[in-house]
Amino acid sequence: MAVTHQKHIYIYSPSGAVRDKTAFRRGVARLKKLGHEVEVDSDALTSYQRFAGDDETRLAAIHRAAASGADVALTTRGGYGMTRLLGGIQYKQVAKAIAKGMLFVGISDFTAFSLAMMAKTGSVTWAGPALCEGFGVAAPELPDDIMEDCFNDLLCGQGEGAGWRQNREPAKRPDSTNAMKSVAKSSNLTGANGTFSIKNTTLWGGNLAVLSSLVGTPYMPEVKGGVLFLEDVAEHPYRVERMLTQLLHAGILARQKAIILGQFTDYKLVPHDRGFKLQTVVDWLRTQVKIPVLTNLPYGHVATKVMLPVGARVELAVEGRDALLFWG
Amino acid sequence: MAVTHQKHIYIYSPSGAVRDKTAFRRGVARLKKLGHEVEVDSDALTSYQRFAGDDETRLAAIHRAAASGADVALTTRGGYGMTRLLGGIQYKQVAKAIAKGMLFVGISDFTAFSLAMMAKTGSVTWAGPALCEGFGVAAPELPDDIMEDCFNDLLCGQGEGAGWRQNREPAKRPDSTNAMKSVAKSSNLTGANGTFSIKNTTLWGGNLAVLSSLVGTPYMPEVKGGVLFLEDVAEHPYRVERMLTQLLHAGILARQKAIILGQFTDYKLVPHDRGFKLQTVVDWLRTQVKIPVLTNLPYGHVATKVMLPVGARVELAVEGRDALLFWG
Repeated sequence: MAVTHQKHIYIYSPSGAVRDKTAFRRGVARLKKLGHEVEVDSDALTSYQRFAGDDETRLAAIHRAAASGADVALTTRGGYGMTRLLGGIQYKQVAKAIAKGMLFVGISDFTAFSLAMMAKTGSVTWAGPALCEGFGVAAPELPDDIMEDCFNDLLCGQGEGAGWRQNREPAKRPDSTNAMKSVAKSSNLTGANGTFSIKNTTLWGGNLAVLSSLVGTPYMPEVKGGVLFLEDVAEHPYRVERMLTQLLHAGILARQKAIILGQFTDYKLVPHDRGFKLQTVVDWLRTQVKIPVLTNLPYGHVATKVMLPVGARVELAVEGRDALLFWG
Repeated sequence: MAVTHQKHIYIYSPSGAVRDKTAFRRGVARLKKLGHEVEVDSDALTSYQRFAGDDETRLAAIHRAAASGADVALTTRGGYGMTRLLGGIQYKQVAKAIAKGMLFVGISDFTAFSLAMMAKTGSVTWAGPALCEGFGVAAPELPDDIMEDCFNDLLCGQGEGAGWRQNREPAKRPDSTNAMKSVAKSSNLTGANGTFSIKNTTLWGGNLAVLSSLVGTPYMPEVKGGVLFLEDVAEHPYRVERMLTQLLHAGILARQKAIILGQFTDYKLVPHDRGFKLQTVVDWLRTQVKIPVLTNLPYGHVATKVMLPVGARVELAVEGRDALLFWG
């Protein structure tokens, strides 16, 4: 995979401690092989309890990343630890770095950082891979093609959008039609039969557990008329539903123009569920909101994932099962 | 165990489906043996997916309980399902029944009902046992003495408070002193050396996961100067901390006069934690708030638990490790 522009990538650890140092080294090697200059933060491999250093250490790492002058600040991994830091981040300092063109990229726990940056400064950050899980995969496997292409395209200034095919619907339900009619009224409808586009809207979202844990706090952006994307890992569908219920009751879902569900993975159904499953939650969600609920966005705790600008103005275009987000 | 007054207890299922029908029958038999009249709702054993009937069925059960004229409405169990119903509850109807003296008792998922009743009407409900786990224990075991005494005392109009002994502190930390000084300033201090009382305050709380899932919604009571009690089950300490962080960042903790931690049980630490544990979270919490954080309240997903009036005016008295809540 040829890279036309060498970029300066700063690797840091704002959340969980890196335990798999082999994956870390493989990730760094891979980025170098792609032609990039890789700078590793002095505390990238620090460990304190389950964290990559205590709060002060991880805060300092974020601020060093912002001050590094790198093109990209990429987290080593997610885990847990960012919400603890939200009161100590120098938002203006980070925003300045972003304004100069720096791309902050991460996933999962990083959602807390992305949304807080958006709430406090309106800055755009990127939902994408983390170093270890994204680039540190063990041979003979290679990092996922699509993920790596999206990452490189973004770095080369060529990332202009993300397209995907939604899940086939299990059955047509009456309220889907209502949702489409509602879209037809509320957005720029460009065609009939499930074809619509929503222009000049704000894309936001990330990990559902992290996002819902910001509801009611000053770190939750107030987005009206936006497109909200969500993913999660190891959360039973009933917990996904409870978190969506919080967003629903808080009025957050009704204020959006569309909801895009990414990948919800690695949960375990139990006999007690008796047919209650993720699709049950999706069906239920569609009875609760009048906006389109799209599915199967290639983003989440999976290898194949796109890069998504959190806080950016985007256009969402849908034609049947095919969906396209672009910001080019 | 002698009961001086026979009471009318209405059993209903607003949340998860009852799978253990033997425990259900044992619970009903136990309440009858204690001398009570037990009325079982027509849908108490209904099952739909993981729920005790669909939303309409469970809402109707709540409203039948309120209209039953019973002295006590006791849930069969917790589980999941109450948050889905919050938009459909006839709060005024339930509040009227409570005003006439009816006691709504439950645990866990029931927290959503308790807090919504409090937010919408200011009514007092009771955090206590549920039928199956509380009274349906298998022979030769008997229902927990303390739980049953508290339940009977309440029914006989003799439940006036709950006392307990806090955990021994692992180490004295400087900020504990600050917390005590803060209490001395902000509350009615009745003595020195960790002895204080907070009078005429509002007791509220319940299951942390359910409570935090109401933040930012109209079902979260706005309590100032209250005493907040919390418990949870099967939540890793990092998740407990993330939920507490939401309450902290939302400003909810700072508005209280004390936090009382109940029982946090059935979670599993992992090698990645490296010393991060529940006590770590308690220690951290005490660095984040200036109010006392009490421990070891006998309430939660454990056999030995007291009855707590959610939304009631109470007094909290603390003398060293001994704590007492009373509302008599």
